[in-house]
Amino acid sequence: MKAYADMDHNELLSLKASLEEKFKTEQAKGLSLNMARGKPGVSQLAISMPMLDVVNKDSDMNTLLGNDTRNYGDWDGIGECRQLMADMMEVKKANVIVCGNSSLNIMYDTVMRSMAMGVNGMTPWCKLDKVKFLCPVPGYDRHFKITELFGIDMIPVPLREDGPDMDMVEQYVNNDEAVKGIWCVPKYSNPTGITYSDEVVRRFANLKPKAEDFRIFWDNAYCIHYIFEETQDKILNILEECEKAGNPNMVYVFASTSKVSFPGSGVSAIATSLENMEYIKKFMTTQIIGHDKINQLRHVRFFKDIDGLNAHMKKHADLIRPKFEAVLNILESELTGLGIGSWTKPRGGYFISFDSMPGCAKAIVAKCKELGLVLTGAGATYPYGKDPDDSNIRIAPTFPTPEEMAEAAKMFVICVKLASVEKLLGE
Amino acid sequence: MKAYADMDHNELLSLKASLEEKFKTEQAKGLSLNMARGKPGVSQLAISMPMLDVVNKDSDMNTLLGNDTRNYGDWDGIGECRQLMADMMEVKKANVIVCGNSSLNIMYDTVMRSMAMGVNGMTPWCKLDKVKFLCPVPGYDRHFKITELFGIDMIPVPLREDGPDMDMVEQYVNNDEAVKGIWCVPKYSNPTGITYSDEVVRRFANLKPKAEDFRIFWDNAYCIHYIFEETQDKILNILEECEKAGNPNMVYVFASTSKVSFPGSGVSAIATSLENMEYIKKFMTTQIIGHDKINQLRHVRFFKDIDGLNAHMKKHADLIRPKFEAVLNILESELTGLGIGSWTKPRGGYFISFDSMPGCAKAIVAKCKELGLVLTGAGATYPYGKDPDDSNIRIAPTFPTPEEMAEAAKMFVICVKLASVEKLLGE
Repeated sequence: MKAYADMDHNELLSLKASLEEKFKTEQAKGLSLNMARGKPGVSQLAISMPMLDVVNKDSDMNTLLGNDTRNYGDWDGIGECRQLMADMMEVKKANVIVCGNSSLNIMYDTVMRSMAMGVNGMTPWCKLDKVKFLCPVPGYDRHFKITELFGIDMIPVPLREDGPDMDMVEQYVNNDEAVKGIWCVPKYSNPTGITYSDEVVRRFANLKPKAEDFRIFWDNAYCIHYIFEETQDKILNILEECEKAGNPNMVYVFASTSKVSFPGSGVSAIATSLENMEYIKKFMTTQIIGHDKINQLRHVRFFKDIDGLNAHMKKHADLIRPKFEAVLNILESELTGLGIGSWTKPRGGYFISFDSMPGCAKAIVAKCKELGLVLTGAGATYPYGKDPDDSNIRIAPTFPTPEEMAEAAKMFVICVKLASVEKLLGE
Repeated sequence: MKAYADMDHNELLSLKASLEEKFKTEQAKGLSLNMARGKPGVSQLAISMPMLDVVNKDSDMNTLLGNDTRNYGDWDGIGECRQLMADMMEVKKANVIVCGNSSLNIMYDTVMRSMAMGVNGMTPWCKLDKVKFLCPVPGYDRHFKITELFGIDMIPVPLREDGPDMDMVEQYVNNDEAVKGIWCVPKYSNPTGITYSDEVVRRFANLKPKAEDFRIFWDNAYCIHYIFEETQDKILNILEECEKAGNPNMVYVFASTSKVSFPGSGVSAIATSLENMEYIKKFMTTQIIGHDKINQLRHVRFFKDIDGLNAHMKKHADLIRPKFEAVLNILESELTGLGIGSWTKPRGGYFISFDSMPGCAKAIVAKCKELGLVLTGAGATYPYGKDPDDSNIRIAPTFPTPEEMAEAAKMFVICVKLASVEKLLGE
């Protein structure tokens, strides 16, 4: 294939004409597909349906310790669910609080509490002139929305193959007292799918923050969410590493079963040091009498243990792998050598990250929309929705069927080509 | 019966000796009962068990509008559950956001948001020198814990038969800009069981707050929780009254099904003006992608509509009425005429409020504990846990069986008598 940049004006014009033809043909199909969010597909939801029957009107509703899950109590979660979530997060049960249906909500609460009341009794962030968060980019838009809402300054840090640019992270964290946090998705990152290397995790654990109330927001959203069973990533235990490095309180770890059982009806958890937990407890026991323990029991009775969880994740992997492959195959066969885009080949998680030629992402997303294909807004993977290169696009392949996904990928490729040609033509 | 205050020293001494005998007899029984919290009894939990089967692995999981409850979406709750909660709260569906399992959590979030980010964009409370809340007393300890946690000054306001002392409420709210809120349990109040009169509700709606960001926290926790079907209380619609009075944004209404379905596994909601909702939405859609919609569906499929809810509440009433009657009968037969205590005769809710002679409540609770009977701590019904008269005790009769309740009430009465005699003897 000839790279677009090597084509002369006439070649580009003729290419454009042929692409516009294809665009019209696709448009005529009147497709309507949504790949904007990382939503599990219907086939994935189906494999969790038996969970709805394991706790029923004839069930013993008591925990292993004999507490009635139907009544108030166990504010930090029932013991067996704390154990299950601990195993999933690869931490100790003693460090885990099981919460409601949403880990995003725990993150929001954690930032909000720090704003209004401070971290472990230190000065509330809302009383400071300036609060800053580091934001590895491309990253998760809902993280950035939280810090944006609270008026926290967001500083983009490039995310590489092995994690964030740690020179830059150290430079900021160790020297600027206003830097209070960093958003991380350490495994099968959203959206690039990369996993932090051991060296990166260790450099995180060995930070020497200028601000005593600096915290790492370690959103291990995809901790067991591999796509290819044979090439699963491993990640160092950040809680342990922080403890070893003398920074036991520096990290909050978050996870949930939103993409294991049901989005919105799963179980979430936070894992952190005992000292941090003590402070959180003061707030959480005022905030709520307890979370949904019947749902916790439902999860434990269904998954039983970490082996049950992993067996379930294998089913998910088998369902989503063909969708990722459909996209990757089409990107590979249609775009290789053209010099108009690059993309990640994730081993886990929910996304493929696509980088177009600079200045083309918005145009591509807009063209896709004309074809009935809704993508995550261009720029969403950057703080304030502003991608300085206008090049990153997050592709979420899980919700459509594999057939729809192949269809959508073909359309996407046409839009990428067309937008690139137009760019090169200076339009 | 002779009032204790009319007894001479010798009569009191001899009475004391006989009470101490009875106390020892009770103590020897080695009872262990907990009446500290308003927990439904096991028989109440049992009537909701069929709810666990209405959504099962073969169920249609779509809402009436065709949205899949198993996936992300409907951040403000599924339509049919918003309708159900609206009917329960006697407000319009358009004013309702259905949330997670805990209305306390919504109240906490509301105060926290006001602290960190202000009410509807006004100055965050954490940036003010002083923030005050009015606290009708006796009241709900968990309300007071929230405001205490955030360092908000709590001002006790006497709660009368028909609601808070409105002269005092008006005096504070209409003149002191630091007064930002008031905690209310308007129907079958916690712990006195009273319901606000129409006049009180109208005076609330017609407040002229000095602070534009003053809000009424209207915790309608017991809106459908009657004990005697024939004497159900009615309460004016505060949202409507506020609107009529030109104060549409002045109130947040909260409710949940914690004591309808399952404590900790129910559904909660907030109802407020569209303008307030718009501001809340900005935060809530950042905080969470959505609440547990499968559980919302479960509630709707089980209760169907307000008639179903009411039929279910009749079952609850039939189960808890004998427990209330057991306590009330014993208080009546054992304490009438002695001048050492008075108590409320609630028509709904979860509590009986008992007032001992001044200076006796702590002693009574301590004596009960010696008998193995755990009550809510004396003072808990007052801000900071400080009852200036040391006289109010909250009795929660729902958790024990009626037989246990009668047993416990007898013990309680012995402790009341003994503590009163000791007080009169100046011990």
